[in-house]
Amino acid sequence: MDPPSLEQEEEKVLVSEHSWRPFPKARRRLRGCLEVVKGLLFRVGEDWYFLFVLGVLMATISFMMDLIVFRLYEAHRWLYQEVGDYLVLKYLSWTIYPVALTAFSTGFANSITPYSGGSGIPELKTILSGVEMKEYLAIKNFGAKVVGLTCTLSAGSTVFLGKLGPFVHLSSMAAAYLGKMRTSVIREYEDKFKQNEMLVAAQAVGVATVFGAPISGVLFSIEVMSSHFAVRDYWRGFFAATCGAFMFRLLAVFNSEQETIAALFKSDLKIDFPFDLPETFFFMILGAICGAIACAYLFCQRWLLAAVKENRLTGRLLATDKPLYTALVVLLLASITFPPGLGQLMASRLSMKEHLISLFDNRSWFLLAQNASMSTTQLGDPRGLWQEWCHPSATIFGTLVFFLLMKFWMLTLATTLPMPAGYFMPVFVYGAAIGRLHGEVLAWLFPHGIRAEGTAYPIVPSGYALAGAAAFSGAVTYSVSTALLVCEATGHMAHVLPVVLAVLVANAITQKCQPSFYDGTIIVKKLPYLPRIRSRHIASYRVVVKEFMEQQVVAVTKSDGFEEVLAALTATTDKEYPVVESKGSPTLVGTISRAKLVAFLQSHEHPQAPPGPLQEKPASTGTLGEDCAIEPIVLQLSPWTSLHQAHHLFELLKLQCIFVTHYGELVGAVTRTELRRAIEELAKDA
Amino acid sequence: MDPPSLEQEEEKVLVSEHSWRPFPKARRRLRGCLEVVKGLLFRVGEDWYFLFVLGVLMATISFMMDLIVFRLYEAHRWLYQEVGDYLVLKYLSWTIYPVALTAFSTGFANSITPYSGGSGIPELKTILSGVEMKEYLAIKNFGAKVVGLTCTLSAGSTVFLGKLGPFVHLSSMAAAYLGKMRTSVIREYEDKFKQNEMLVAAQAVGVATVFGAPISGVLFSIEVMSSHFAVRDYWRGFFAATCGAFMFRLLAVFNSEQETIAALFKSDLKIDFPFDLPETFFFMILGAICGAIACAYLFCQRWLLAAVKENRLTGRLLATDKPLYTALVVLLLASITFPPGLGQLMASRLSMKEHLISLFDNRSWFLLAQNASMSTTQLGDPRGLWQEWCHPSATIFGTLVFFLLMKFWMLTLATTLPMPAGYFMPVFVYGAAIGRLHGEVLAWLFPHGIRAEGTAYPIVPSGYALAGAAAFSGAVTYSVSTALLVCEATGHMAHVLPVVLAVLVANAITQKCQPSFYDGTIIVKKLPYLPRIRSRHIASYRVVVKEFMEQQVVAVTKSDGFEEVLAALTATTDKEYPVVESKGSPTLVGTISRAKLVAFLQSHEHPQAPPGPLQEKPASTGTLGEDCAIEPIVLQLSPWTSLHQAHHLFELLKLQCIFVTHYGELVGAVTRTELRRAIEELAKDA
Repeated sequence: MDPPSLEQEEEKVLVSEHSWRPFPKARRRLRGCLEVVKGLLFRVGEDWYFLFVLGVLMATISFMMDLIVFRLYEAHRWLYQEVGDYLVLKYLSWTIYPVALTAFSTGFANSITPYSGGSGIPELKTILSGVEMKEYLAIKNFGAKVVGLTCTLSAGSTVFLGKLGPFVHLSSMAAAYLGKMRTSVIREYEDKFKQNEMLVAAQAVGVATVFGAPISGVLFSIEVMSSHFAVRDYWRGFFAATCGAFMFRLLAVFNSEQETIAALFKSDLKIDFPFDLPETFFFMILGAICGAIACAYLFCQRWLLAAVKENRLTGRLLATDKPLYTALVVLLLASITFPPGLGQLMASRLSMKEHLISLFDNRSWFLLAQNASMSTTQLGDPRGLWQEWCHPSATIFGTLVFFLLMKFWMLTLATTLPMPAGYFMPVFVYGAAIGRLHGEVLAWLFPHGIRAEGTAYPIVPSGYALAGAAAFSGAVTYSVSTALLVCEATGHMAHVLPVVLAVLVANAITQKCQPSFYDGTIIVKKLPYLPRIRSRHIASYRVVVKEFMEQQVVAVTKSDGFEEVLAALTATTDKEYPVVESKGSPTLVGTISRAKLVAFLQSHEHPQAPPGPLQEKPASTGTLGEDCAIEPIVLQLSPWTSLHQAHHLFELLKLQCIFVTHYGELVGAVTRTELRRAIEELAKDA
Repeated sequence: MDPPSLEQEEEKVLVSEHSWRPFPKARRRLRGCLEVVKGLLFRVGEDWYFLFVLGVLMATISFMMDLIVFRLYEAHRWLYQEVGDYLVLKYLSWTIYPVALTAFSTGFANSITPYSGGSGIPELKTILSGVEMKEYLAIKNFGAKVVGLTCTLSAGSTVFLGKLGPFVHLSSMAAAYLGKMRTSVIREYEDKFKQNEMLVAAQAVGVATVFGAPISGVLFSIEVMSSHFAVRDYWRGFFAATCGAFMFRLLAVFNSEQETIAALFKSDLKIDFPFDLPETFFFMILGAICGAIACAYLFCQRWLLAAVKENRLTGRLLATDKPLYTALVVLLLASITFPPGLGQLMASRLSMKEHLISLFDNRSWFLLAQNASMSTTQLGDPRGLWQEWCHPSATIFGTLVFFLLMKFWMLTLATTLPMPAGYFMPVFVYGAAIGRLHGEVLAWLFPHGIRAEGTAYPIVPSGYALAGAAAFSGAVTYSVSTALLVCEATGHMAHVLPVVLAVLVANAITQKCQPSFYDGTIIVKKLPYLPRIRSRHIASYRVVVKEFMEQQVVAVTKSDGFEEVLAALTATTDKEYPVVESKGSPTLVGTISRAKLVAFLQSHEHPQAPPGPLQEKPASTGTLGEDCAIEPIVLQLSPWTSLHQAHHLFELLKLQCIFVTHYGELVGAVTRTELRRAIEELAKDA
């Protein structure tokens, strides 16, 4: 039999196609509808699908990381229990594990890219203020940071570090990478603008996928990152953060950890009578305490960060042998938290999440310790976690105070480690411990509640733990939205008013005395930074641009040739040069980038150079005005613009440099350096 | 006996002073400390005490108003019950009371000032965008609005209006008034800047004192009012709103309404299992429904607002006889809600707060109606409120559907009433009813929950009521923070994720199709308004200032005398005139205000005028450059600035007019009118 000819086969296909596609009209109409829907949904420029992908991606990574960290942590716990009662073995298994993990984390992350260490938030803050630091958003940091962070977190509460900052960084990297895939928009300005929008949304995703808290994710990222925010971009953050938080909680349900979507640190605080009115004062006192401790912490942290770099031994270690430095520091931290040693006084067997759950326990530990006979500790049961805080020879007050004292310097030391790690979560736990102590002391002082008459309602110490966590972390990061964060993370809303009060008091104190954690790091790392003008500097209202602008601006003129351009290029390293009409009448015409000037030099010939023998066509001899495209000026200041106005413009428009003209003539330039100097001089005069 | 001499008395005083003031050193030191504390707290420019006063003041007014409204409402209820079973008397007592109150409200408010009607939010939004409308912030509106609003609210659910908008307006007026008392700052620019900061805080106070919700108060006011927000000003809003919300709830405790500070519409939604995972889809469907209804509502509302003005009869009534118009409309509304008539099908005996409490009831009405034998309705018991929604001849579905259908047009009609009233609360209640209906239908369809296997968890309809309220009110006002508002107002956090989802879906639909409630009112009222550039207008990236700027700018030159200035002043009505070097080379030198030009004319003499016989000293004959102070230019655009950049600058810096220069020479000007026209043309082309 002949094989069926090509035509026959084609016909068959056509027939079968036909037989499989009935109702051509209905199909066409349906296809039309689908096209319209597609057009509506995927219109260029509307980036909800991109935000959706970002949220889901980051949530999945966050969840997977949590899973792996949990397994690694369990493995450590198992190892520690299996080695038996030999104290040396126990000590080795307790210390070597985190030392190895963190040393690997440091080495791995730093070997791939030097930008993957630390939290990344200070750098992102700088980027959002308009400075270009493309290497920080390069996708190659991503893998290094993910692996490094997983190892850091697996070291557990020994190292006492979190994942918020790195996740914000990871999310921003993912957004920048995804952004490259989108339809490119036309102008550089719009592109930068768009990227900013996306970065803000990405940061919200970072926070939301760590805490499963969409609303406070958006707010926290705004407060920490930006100086100004466009309400038009709100929905981006909300949408992406909601997708992220939803996916994050959804995965927990699929993994059978929970029956349905619920808060991350769900606590059954009783809702009937959360707090009595006079307790508001105690909440405010707690806020003041948290503010004061936050000041001390910020000061010590900044001092230590600088001291470690300046000290000869540690400075050399940090420069050349980062993993060794990490190993030594973590060995010290692990030795101190060794459970049969000092660790038993600071509940060191708990993971950070268990710390939080036990601190947010709605029963009073003091009463529990009085009533219950000390049973053997069961680490599996969340309601028994509080027993870790009991010690036969110390009351719970003793262990809490010891925990706070030791963790203060241990946490400060841990922030100097050069590996991917977040610093928000430890601060959050520390604040919860402050609040718990405060609450337990109150519950001990007023065992029958505060009210003199009527029904007695006992004090709920976990309410204070909530307020402490929010107030301390809020004070350290200069943010108010931590108040909402504790509500969202615990699913408990009844304490919101006193918590907000405590956060406001703590913030008022810290903002008076110290720069925030992130600003402090920016200052120590010497990143570009624009200080705020404090309202107490009344003289600031009288300062005008004329007084602090840079008057020696290197400008090129339209008639410049090779030599003048070369002279200008060697005179400064500016990225942009102003172009003026002529030396005589320096009317500002536009700007020209350094790259274009270099290209101009390459295409032109030095007038005194001998004609090159290999040159095929003679180089152009035109002037700058003829051969170079001059960028128009968008904005210009006048010498009488006030410092406040200039500062406002720099913050709002994320400017780097702006020229000052007087009657159209170039008279100076203002960059962030000049602004900063002017503001710092104000502070000196005051 | 001689009277004691003056010296003796003085000595006595000195002795007694001395005897009453021991420890001079300690006292001096203490006084020094107090001075330092005072210096710290009351430093000029730090306005926390001012914000505190604002919060407490508005909270007190809000609470007192609630009290009075409650009493007036009770009086109406009493009257209605006391008149016995005569249907005519019942009808008269039901209708006359609200008609009288609202007519008085309209008449009183409008007779004192024409600016006290409506909600005030559209006008405030315009003010915050940089337009000066001082009369709207004048304190004389305050009393008119307070009295008028109290009467409006006392008319109860018959008129179905709320108090959010007017409270935001009241709070802003109070802030503007208090602001005048503060230390005056040096420049006009800073002063305006400061006033803006205060207005934003005041708006947060307005929302917070109505709902007792500090965090969502801040967020809602930001979303609704501003286009951009400075994070630096966050704390102001938070602080003032917290003080306000705290005071508001505190007064409720002092008044023995509650035992401690709790949420306003506290609902005991069960927290163990708020919703099952598949229900998320139903929440999103609810969001879509709310979005669609919001579109219809916004369209009808805008149409009716314009139609009522254009119609000859109603237009004349509104222009000349506002109270009569109000009385007629309210008579219609009250007749429809008459309980023995149609009112029994729409639970018209409940106040708006009772509506909300019954809609947020955590039990399923459908199940309740099945199980319970119909007892007589007790209006006092909040747990019996749902029975108002039952009707012997209609199921609860019937009453809910009827309520939604009737209230749709009744609400639209009520928004045309020219009296002080808020439109947020009715929208909120309406949304809750949509959600309740959706939830009850689901509970009826899936009586044993959605899950096929495992434990059955019944559906909680009140969760849908929460989501509906947030989604509908969010869609109408273009805001996402209503999701947080329902959480704060009910003290219930477990539903936050699905609620946010529903709000986002509803917002996505509405923002595609209709301008927001406030923007719509701004359009109808023809207030200055800057539309946003939609991202689907890709062509917008190519438009530059050159194409849409006003090229015919009336400028004055430095050498102008009387005649030229007079000609310029008569040519346009601009508030500011650009000053150029000379007609030949129009280099922009600065600006000069209209007022100064008028002053120039008054102090100079027309060259052809005969010397006045009464003139003592001869008028100056100098030119403009010699006799007038020219304001320097702060910002200028170039013809190649893009539409996006210009729009961004106008929004960010709240500009009204900006000049365009090319090589320093004036070539045009851009005002909001030109920008708006350019954006509208984009929409036409698309």
